[in-house]
Amino acid sequence: MPHPAFNPLVASLSQPPVPAVLSWAQAYHGQNGPLIDLSQAVPGYPAHPDMLRWLSEAAGSTDYTGYGAIEGESVLREAYVQHVSTLYGATIAADHIHITSGANQAFMCAAMAIAGAGDRLAMTIPFYFNQETTLSMLGVGTVFIECDASRSFLPDTAAVEAALVDGVKALVLVTPNNPTGAVYPAGLLREIFDICRRKGVWLVLDETYRDFLPEGAERPHELLSIPGWEDTLILLYSFSKSFCIPGHRLGAITAGPAVIEQVTKIMDNLQICAPRAAQAALAKAIPTLDDWRRGNREEIMHRTDALKAVMADLPMWRMEAVGAYFAFIRHPFEGVSSAFVAERLAKDAGVVCLPGVYFGPGQEPFLRFAFANADVPTIGTLRERLASFNLPSA
Amino acid sequence: MPHPAFNPLVASLSQPPVPAVLSWAQAYHGQNGPLIDLSQAVPGYPAHPDMLRWLSEAAGSTDYTGYGAIEGESVLREAYVQHVSTLYGATIAADHIHITSGANQAFMCAAMAIAGAGDRLAMTIPFYFNQETTLSMLGVGTVFIECDASRSFLPDTAAVEAALVDGVKALVLVTPNNPTGAVYPAGLLREIFDICRRKGVWLVLDETYRDFLPEGAERPHELLSIPGWEDTLILLYSFSKSFCIPGHRLGAITAGPAVIEQVTKIMDNLQICAPRAAQAALAKAIPTLDDWRRGNREEIMHRTDALKAVMADLPMWRMEAVGAYFAFIRHPFEGVSSAFVAERLAKDAGVVCLPGVYFGPGQEPFLRFAFANADVPTIGTLRERLASFNLPSA
Ligand SMILES: Cc1ncc(COP(=O)(O)O)c(C=O)c1O
Ligand SMILES: Cc1ncc(COP(=O)(O)O)c(C=O)c1O
Repeated sequence: MPHPAFNPLVASLSQPPVPAVLSWAQAYHGQNGPLIDLSQAVPGYPAHPDMLRWLSEAAGSTDYTGYGAIEGESVLREAYVQHVSTLYGATIAADHIHITSGANQAFMCAAMAIAGAGDRLAMTIPFYFNQETTLSMLGVGTVFIECDASRSFLPDTAAVEAALVDGVKALVLVTPNNPTGAVYPAGLLREIFDICRRKGVWLVLDETYRDFLPEGAERPHELLSIPGWEDTLILLYSFSKSFCIPGHRLGAITAGPAVIEQVTKIMDNLQICAPRAAQAALAKAIPTLDDWRRGNREEIMHRTDALKAVMADLPMWRMEAVGAYFAFIRHPFEGVSSAFVAERLAKDAGVVCLPGVYFGPGQEPFLRFAFANADVPTIGTLRERLASFNLPSA
Repeated sequence: MPHPAFNPLVASLSQPPVPAVLSWAQAYHGQNGPLIDLSQAVPGYPAHPDMLRWLSEAAGSTDYTGYGAIEGESVLREAYVQHVSTLYGATIAADHIHITSGANQAFMCAAMAIAGAGDRLAMTIPFYFNQETTLSMLGVGTVFIECDASRSFLPDTAAVEAALVDGVKALVLVTPNNPTGAVYPAGLLREIFDICRRKGVWLVLDETYRDFLPEGAERPHELLSIPGWEDTLILLYSFSKSFCIPGHRLGAITAGPAVIEQVTKIMDNLQICAPRAAQAALAKAIPTLDDWRRGNREEIMHRTDALKAVMADLPMWRMEAVGAYFAFIRHPFEGVSSAFVAERLAKDAGVVCLPGVYFGPGQEPFLRFAFANADVPTIGTLRERLASFNLPSA
């Protein structure tokens, strides 16, 4: 009797990284003090009380129990498009917005709208792992653009140009970057946009960490002011981080109406619509929680400064890049696998982070610290933890 | 300058059917009385007040704002597996369950776990349109098994056998069926299961309408009692209909742990986890709202009887099949396209339903009435509406 088989593109994916790493954490027994969890990109502070109240009100109402508009609740699309228009100083309309269940789903929708099995997308290395595995499971090939510390983990425009060969449908960038924290300057994004436009290749920008840019430099780029941007640009965003509500699963795509139309067809199949009650709550939160969000950005900046101070005292551990939620750290154990280092760090020192290997080939020297999850005092305790950490001798 | 293009598999999909049909409804101005909306498969009564309270409580709590387990909240997996075990008289465990954002997403996950671009899946005609479009956009081919009124829209086992040729990875069935309402007898499901097992083909059963089987015949089949069922069977379920919460987007996959493991990898990419607060609420509702659900089943049965009585008085309109939420109706206008009939019915008579053409080739003679959405008195008014309806003369 033949045995029903799995799709080899899925069967060959490795297990999701975050749960694997959290299982190492469970083997730490507090011998060096409380666990320091730098594994997941989540803010360590709670959602705003008003947000929780609005979530509760909407969820208890029969107004949101039925199926909703595929594109998203119109109140949320309106509120979000206002915010985006102001942030970018551009005039866009609600039909440029599609609400999704988070930015991972936004990426999957964008990727499917553009590419099918056998097509290729270009992305930077190190990459955000879920983007790479999403393409793998869809049978979409990847062309990699290597980024390294010598260029602050930003791509060289010549390398971008070279990567966008025939058959490459899109370039995917993440800024501020996961895993490195690198922030792409507006000028570089403009140059890359022009290359994409010249080559007829979509530029997909994942701006999940957009709200954590430094004070005075909040506008990530001017691309939405370029006439005809809709023919080349797709922006992805997550409400998970900025509003501290990843469990409610909401994100957004900003793109031309023709893209939104494709995404609507995909979303109808994929889940009909994003969960509705949280959309209604968010529509209230966007125009009202600006100050709170500004305060959070400042708090994350304090955490960045705290981590910089810690790392400056630890010459063996080199912080190669830092920004928004992440620091990309070169660990002191040259030639040792990053997964082994991260596992020992979790189990012996109680410091949980992601090994570089999850972010692509050549990343073994690195660890990703998602420090937004730890407050300033906790980050301070990292100094002693890392200074006294060593690998078990063989 | 070359123009960035879309994935042709997506670009060639037609617009989602339900919004298109609802736009016809907007052109009805009440000339024959209130709109009778038989378009969408939703219950016309509200969620239980306790359900709303639990939804509200969970949504307002910081317990569910963070990222959750990819497979679903363990309280919900436990509650649901209890329910499934009792319903099927089988012993299964929580690791047989994956929570998704609805049954459409459950289908997409199951399809991706099994098949990639270039593979094929077998499905019945008429089909549930989102299943067909999901496969199309993934580049998965389809082999169709025709079902017709002469066999109560159930497939012939010889046709099933013939369809499962080399390279077909799975057979997809929907029971109770959307669009026909046909209920697959347990014995037929057993025969089909055995064919699938012999051929090494997955059997994917979409049981979204499982809770609306007649009193005394609640157990749809005995397949979960067959040793080794996990190697062949995947069950899909939706919480949308039974708990009146489609806007909260929750469904479930019941399958072997090896399937669940594949689905977990897919879900991590596709949306990390289903929305959490509603999962927590549902975990409370499953063990407590049994009587309410039974009452709803009875109410749907009353609606079925009411529709039967109406249709018996309208010999020109033939009800070819009925069950659970749906009736499949042969309209009186032979040779006229079902979309034209449905559009006129919506605009002129204020009766909104889906045209047969959405459910596959050969379905032009039919309309789907999703009658769960209308109460008994409303269904009664259909008699006069349909009796006096005619197409505009050309
Ligand atoms: C770059 C990037 N994109 C997308 C996501 C997913 O976010 P969401 O919770 O909105 O799905 C993350 C989450 O960590 C991320 O780092
Ligand atoms: C057969 C079938 N499967 C799946 C679904 C989708 O249900 P959900 O709301 O759980 O995504 C429907 C909804 O109408 C359906 O009829």
